[in-house]
Amino acid sequence: MAAMPASQTPDSPRTLAELGEDAILDRLTRAFGPSAGTGGALMLGIGDDAAVLRADSGQLVITTDTLTEDQDFRPGWFSTPESYGESVGHQAVAQNLSDIVAMGAHPTAVLLSLVLPPELDADWVDGFGAGVAAALSAAGADLRVAGGDLGAGPSVSVSVTALGEAPGSLLRRDSAQPTDVLAVGPSSSDGAARSPLGSAAAGLALLEAGMLASEVQRPYLAAQLYPSIDVSAGVRALAAGAHAGLDVSDGLLRDTVRLASASGVVIDVESEALRAMVTELEPLAVALGAQDAEAARAQAWGWLLSGGEDYVLLASFPAEAELPRGFTRLGTVHGATAEAAGTVLLDGADPAAVLKGTGWDSLR
Amino acid sequence: MAAMPASQTPDSPRTLAELGEDAILDRLTRAFGPSAGTGGALMLGIGDDAAVLRADSGQLVITTDTLTEDQDFRPGWFSTPESYGESVGHQAVAQNLSDIVAMGAHPTAVLLSLVLPPELDADWVDGFGAGVAAALSAAGADLRVAGGDLGAGPSVSVSVTALGEAPGSLLRRDSAQPTDVLAVGPSSSDGAARSPLGSAAAGLALLEAGMLASEVQRPYLAAQLYPSIDVSAGVRALAAGAHAGLDVSDGLLRDTVRLASASGVVIDVESEALRAMVTELEPLAVALGAQDAEAARAQAWGWLLSGGEDYVLLASFPAEAELPRGFTRLGTVHGATAEAAGTVLLDGADPAAVLKGTGWDSLR
Repeated sequence: MAAMPASQTPDSPRTLAELGEDAILDRLTRAFGPSAGTGGALMLGIGDDAAVLRADSGQLVITTDTLTEDQDFRPGWFSTPESYGESVGHQAVAQNLSDIVAMGAHPTAVLLSLVLPPELDADWVDGFGAGVAAALSAAGADLRVAGGDLGAGPSVSVSVTALGEAPGSLLRRDSAQPTDVLAVGPSSSDGAARSPLGSAAAGLALLEAGMLASEVQRPYLAAQLYPSIDVSAGVRALAAGAHAGLDVSDGLLRDTVRLASASGVVIDVESEALRAMVTELEPLAVALGAQDAEAARAQAWGWLLSGGEDYVLLASFPAEAELPRGFTRLGTVHGATAEAAGTVLLDGADPAAVLKGTGWDSLR
Repeated sequence: MAAMPASQTPDSPRTLAELGEDAILDRLTRAFGPSAGTGGALMLGIGDDAAVLRADSGQLVITTDTLTEDQDFRPGWFSTPESYGESVGHQAVAQNLSDIVAMGAHPTAVLLSLVLPPELDADWVDGFGAGVAAALSAAGADLRVAGGDLGAGPSVSVSVTALGEAPGSLLRRDSAQPTDVLAVGPSSSDGAARSPLGSAAAGLALLEAGMLASEVQRPYLAAQLYPSIDVSAGVRALAAGAHAGLDVSDGLLRDTVRLASASGVVIDVESEALRAMVTELEPLAVALGAQDAEAARAQAWGWLLSGGEDYVLLASFPAEAELPRGFTRLGTVHGATAEAAGTVLLDGADPAAVLKGTGWDSLR
């Protein structure tokens, strides 16, 4: 970052290069709030060579992901640099916390490594700080930014590392059992499935179409731009006896295949459970110009099965378990020969065959 | 990443887009070696939503940094994509481990988040895997890649998160005491100060000049492209009674100012200790075209005081302490008024005044 001493900073810096590295870090640190000494896991935060966390539980859970401009978000979606930064902060935190939650762990801290172009508008930083703070605060009072790094590059890129602790069992993806029930968790911490699966993909379609969203359509935009996660979903699933689980981030079908493959089982999804979600998504497909009702239904099935970034928990429970609040039953787990392991069926048949009538025909 | 199923991969894929995401991950995972179940801290490695580490010590140390093309390295420095990837892997790991070491901790694992352009040569991946593996293996037998992420972007960018454990005291930067001795640690794990401070900056000057390095000059290139660190430096400093320490990564002078500021002290550096290092660097400045001996000496002082990426440990010890093997005494710590705190002197005077005769006059 082309740093500039604070004393030479213009009155109203317009770009990050004018703002300077120290001022950028000051703004972010203020937005993130106190980093240590607040009773959480963080013992030493921003300011030394590295952060220090208390590690009492014996099991530390950790994940990292990078979001990049034009791959995970586009500047053109936003009317101001501030709203652009806010959405990126929100998405980056939510995506990584979702992975911690899907291990059955409590998130404890995040680290942020930012690559920003020097010509980026200075307001972006304030939006980003606010987005990160909002996503952390929605997820838990003790969750803090433990540290990070700031550098320059040709386009915006945000790497997040999220940490959590798992006091007991883990929610792994390789341990679904025959006769288990497959279920999907809620998308927000109040336990209500406010947005159906596929909402983030539907929101992406709205953004790519450049349409002004109506009141009714706004939740789809929010699902894409400001994803919320149920931070207790993994812990609650384990408490209910869940055998296995993973984060739905790359589309329901692909992540169900991952669960089936890792566990060496066949998973049979019931279309009944999905039809209500499809029905909710259809009006948006119509608004986006689907030729007829059939085309709208095919589009809705596509969002539901192949859309990404829903950040909900897919888990398998013993048949006799009572599903945790907000979870929806999706199907059942069956034993498999080595050859069949990893297969996902819809109503006992090949999903492509079942959905042929809808026009939806892609497994990818 | 534009993924391509393995069955459609051409015989000799030339680019990452041709290689496909799964094949890239396979190559990297093989290069990194086994990630868990090897007796180290890693309980669950690559393959689930997140990695799981054993956290026995009670104190987890964590840091993250991103290295980007044209900021931290340039493709033009390398004759092959493989050597390019190898150097980036080496630099990314060394830079982050150095921060863990400088907290007085043992590194236990790293996570890698890669952003790579689809048109990048496929050999880059093999070089990168080898560079990461070499840097980890040089640093410790139990040190593993715990997880990571792969995405596409306009240029190469590598984010590393490094983890460590600190069983007892930490080596913070805010606790240097008046009468302490300032010392700098060795640059390699055999305890020998093979390359003087400033070597990485001298190597960078060689690279930017596009010169073919002679046998004698190669260690400077290596200091820049394949930095080695003494992974036990922080723990050994603590064992010798060190009060404070930090990583020298942004130049000796700037990092000494950071130590003095954080600790609220004045640090007086002895030029005697630095002159031997300057003498070692002078011939390279001559080879790079310095007009005369005086200009060469000024250049050498610049590399020594303002060069970056040396990744050695700067620490302060009680006056009576015996310095650990390989550490070199650099000066003394003095109490300071609030106003003077953070000041760094050279032989008791302003460094710029002392070094005026050398032509070196910049504190930045």
